Amino acid sequence: MKRLVLLSPEESAVRLSRLRSSLADAGIDAALISDNANIYYLTGRVFAGYVYVPAVGPEIYFVRRPIGLEGDGVVYIRKPEQIAETIGLNVPATLALELDVTTWSDVSRLSAIFGESKTANASPLMRRLRAVKTEAEIRLMKISGEKQERVYRRVPHLYRQGMTDMELQVEIERLSRLEGCLGQFRISGDSMELYMGNVLAGENADNPTPYDFAMGGEGLDPSLPVGCNGSIIKPGESVMVDVNGNYTGYMTDMTRTFAITTVDTLAQKAHKCSIDICAAIAAAGTPGTEAKSLYTIAEKMAAEAGLERYFMGHKQKAGFVGHGVGIEINELPVIAPRSKDILAENNTIALEPKFVIPGVGAVGIENTYIVTTQGMECITNAPQQIISFT
Amino acid sequence: MKRLVLLSPEESAVRLSRLRSSLADAGIDAALISDNANIYYLTGRVFAGYVYVPAVGPEIYFVRRPIGLEGDGVVYIRKPEQIAETIGLNVPATLALELDVTTWSDVSRLSAIFGESKTANASPLMRRLRAVKTEAEIRLMKISGEKQERVYRRVPHLYRQGMTDMELQVEIERLSRLEGCLGQFRISGDSMELYMGNVLAGENADNPTPYDFAMGGEGLDPSLPVGCNGSIIKPGESVMVDVNGNYTGYMTDMTRTFAITTVDTLAQKAHKCSIDICAAIAAAGTPGTEAKSLYTIAEKMAAEAGLERYFMGHKQKAGFVGHGVGIEINELPVIAPRSKDILAENNTIALEPKFVIPGVGAVGIENTYIVTTQGMECITNAPQQIISFT
Repeated sequence: MKRLVLLSPEESAVRLSRLRSSLADAGIDAALISDNANIYYLTGRVFAGYVYVPAVGPEIYFVRRPIGLEGDGVVYIRKPEQIAETIGLNVPATLALELDVTTWSDVSRLSAIFGESKTANASPLMRRLRAVKTEAEIRLMKISGEKQERVYRRVPHLYRQGMTDMELQVEIERLSRLEGCLGQFRISGDSMELYMGNVLAGENADNPTPYDFAMGGEGLDPSLPVGCNGSIIKPGESVMVDVNGNYTGYMTDMTRTFAITTVDTLAQKAHKCSIDICAAIAAAGTPGTEAKSLYTIAEKMAAEAGLERYFMGHKQKAGFVGHGVGIEINELPVIAPRSKDILAENNTIALEPKFVIPGVGAVGIENTYIVTTQGMECITNAPQQIISFT
Repeated sequence: MKRLVLLSPEESAVRLSRLRSSLADAGIDAALISDNANIYYLTGRVFAGYVYVPAVGPEIYFVRRPIGLEGDGVVYIRKPEQIAETIGLNVPATLALELDVTTWSDVSRLSAIFGESKTANASPLMRRLRAVKTEAEIRLMKISGEKQERVYRRVPHLYRQGMTDMELQVEIERLSRLEGCLGQFRISGDSMELYMGNVLAGENADNPTPYDFAMGGEGLDPSLPVGCNGSIIKPGESVMVDVNGNYTGYMTDMTRTFAITTVDTLAQKAHKCSIDICAAIAAAGTPGTEAKSLYTIAEKMAAEAGLERYFMGHKQKAGFVGHGVGIEINELPVIAPRSKDILAENNTIALEPKFVIPGVGAVGIENTYIVTTQGMECITNAPQQIISFT
């Protein structure tokens, strides 16, 4: 038998008690959690089943699969209807389900089991909790940052003359995986899709995608229209590398720009502007800061440099310069014009002020930061300038 | 401007008219489709938005992203509420939404837009439609099968002495990607997760997973507990390779078993039984056959060979021997004991009767087949015996 909860007892208690406080604050009596990302947050592992957390009283882990897990509160079930047998008469007056990630059919089935409970939404609540990382989570993110950095430092050596963007991406994927990258790219929201990462060379960066990522690309097939499209990498073009940093279950997000030799002065200027924006936001991003004010910094600096036409895309623009990152790539806070998020200590945020320069491609950087009282601490520390392939 | 619908006009008409017939049969007035897999099915591309298909009247493509698509019925929107403006007074009495894949929150928002419509479930309807492939879809599946086969034939040459299961998987991933594999593994259902594929060596095959796949594995991290776990591949163990065959937007699913030299006689017997089960089911699987009767064939043959303890897993067992495959890896029909599915011509089905032998590992094969009036035609034709690494 193996322990179901892989978190230390202290870490588990911290996360559960924060969830209980949120429930109590919202006047909710219990939460029933089934999303893999949230189950991983609450237990340190993924299992098929549910974590039932009452505002008052012990948590229960309802497990469908795998076999062989044990611990306080572990109850094996074959189907969710069996939850009712365990809960018995302690039916919560209000039950929070993950309405933003669970399907209509699954919510209907769960609601029927708790027929007398009023349904509330656990999704925004869990998103807010998960946005503020614990020390243990930050340790895992720093490990991912270090490993991702090690891979990025070796990217220039992977290039061979005549390579396509796809061939380069495959070699980066291989290097990442051998370094321990899990590959999996957890994203909240079904409509977001990406395979391991995005390598954008030259004009392909200006191809718009259906997805809500910072950058686009045509992709290799209309069934997955994002990223590299098989073009040969040419001198004078930029090659933007934004590849998965999930080495621990917690992701860092990092982008660097490469070129065979160099890129034109406009692209160089835009790249420098991206580095400067990151530094300016990192300095300003202390706890209590409005996320939208950080977007304004980026927008102003891009405009002052005369680069607004290229900022966050050229033909199609993204509506944000940064986003929370952790178990999923699109966490809170969002650094966007109309964001209502306020930065908190131990938010972990990826900043990606990028530019698409026609005839050159995408330039700029992305780093992952931890919000501290001194500003944002970078945990993805590879060289930031445009790097020539060697 | 680019064409929104990438299917030929004839192909598009076939798929839409089949959907319209299903709607009419079910007494539903219109469907609003937003799932990426279903949008790809109806248009030949993924976009962010909705396909609105009334049982009677022209279809409308509501597009949020990317910019620059055009064609009959294309309407750009920023938010779903704008759909109402276009529909105007033609509000359907009954509207089908994808209740099994769309979140509670998104369904609620869409239902509110169509306030006067009764909501029906488009998910089972689309799953049934997509289970029967058109000739154009079968062409794409055959291309995937050929490419996947080419990769599998080269797997024995990727092994190096002292390699871990993970290192072998990475080299297979690289080879697949260079052959054109898109990597993306479309799965219906949020709780199913896997990165590109599963390489199971030795005892790791007996580690149970939370996921509803045929085989398990501990995985590299508790955040993604499935597949290879970093063990060194040892003589006498089996190495089961089940890696992504998505080369065209349509996947084939294929498994082969390898070994450094050979495996013991029990494992050899089980492997042969797997090949025999595939052949027996393929011969029996004509249109009109009950899916559950094919499961019974597998179960009986495993029992007659004295292998039921190892059939479809040892410590934890999977509940099926086959599944539909196409745009997603888990389509209809399901070959399981209580399946109500009936085979139809041009179903595409992966059969994977597998065994886990303690002390050896996973053995058996998997192939993808097309259901024809003559039985099931295999489209993944690499050698089936246990193959020694060279």
